[in-house]
Amino acid sequence: MIRHIVLFTWTDEATDEQKAAVAAGLAELPGLIPQIRAFTASADAGINQGNADFAVVADFDSEDDYLVYRDDPRHQAVIAERIKPILASRAAAQLRL
Amino acid sequence: MIRHIVLFTWTDEATDEQKAAVAAGLAELPGLIPQIRAFTASADAGINQGNADFAVVADFDSEDDYLVYRDDPRHQAVIAERIKPILASRAAAQLRL
Repeated sequence: MIRHIVLFTWTDEATDEQKAAVAAGLAELPGLIPQIRAFTASADAGINQGNADFAVVADFDSEDDYLVYRDDPRHQAVIAERIKPILASRAAAQLRL
Repeated sequence: MIRHIVLFTWTDEATDEQKAAVAAGLAELPGLIPQIRAFTASADAGINQGNADFAVVADFDSEDDYLVYRDDPRHQAVIAERIKPILASRAAAQLRL
């Protein structure tokens, strides 16, 4: 299994509407990309100071299935149109479990 | 449920032995802290460039259970003795699911 993990921090100028559009765009992907086995995409809960603003955790049966997701044009459109305009920083990893 | 997510990047000077000691120290925590419902701690698989080096994803039934884990002295010892000496950067989030 591959577990894909991303943490995003948004720019100070990012609006609530823009942040909500990221969540809404990502939430559509499990219905569009059948290779996604499990998918969590949500804002930080605000428990700790200094956290990232938003996280994605997505599970795939294989590296090939992860790559299908990574390169899917509907995923790439969410990144280009909704994430990048408000992105301050990004950290990611894929774990082989 | 609370899902706790952390991405670490190690210093260039970090040795394989030090990195393995982080993984080993974290892997003991589910046996010590019963509030942990699910726990993944693993190195990045090397699929993409520019990734973090190591990730933790841990699930808890409640925010209180997450706080027990966060503040447990055995967890804090892994952070102080094994993670901090080789830490270049850290990003984290907790999601309320």
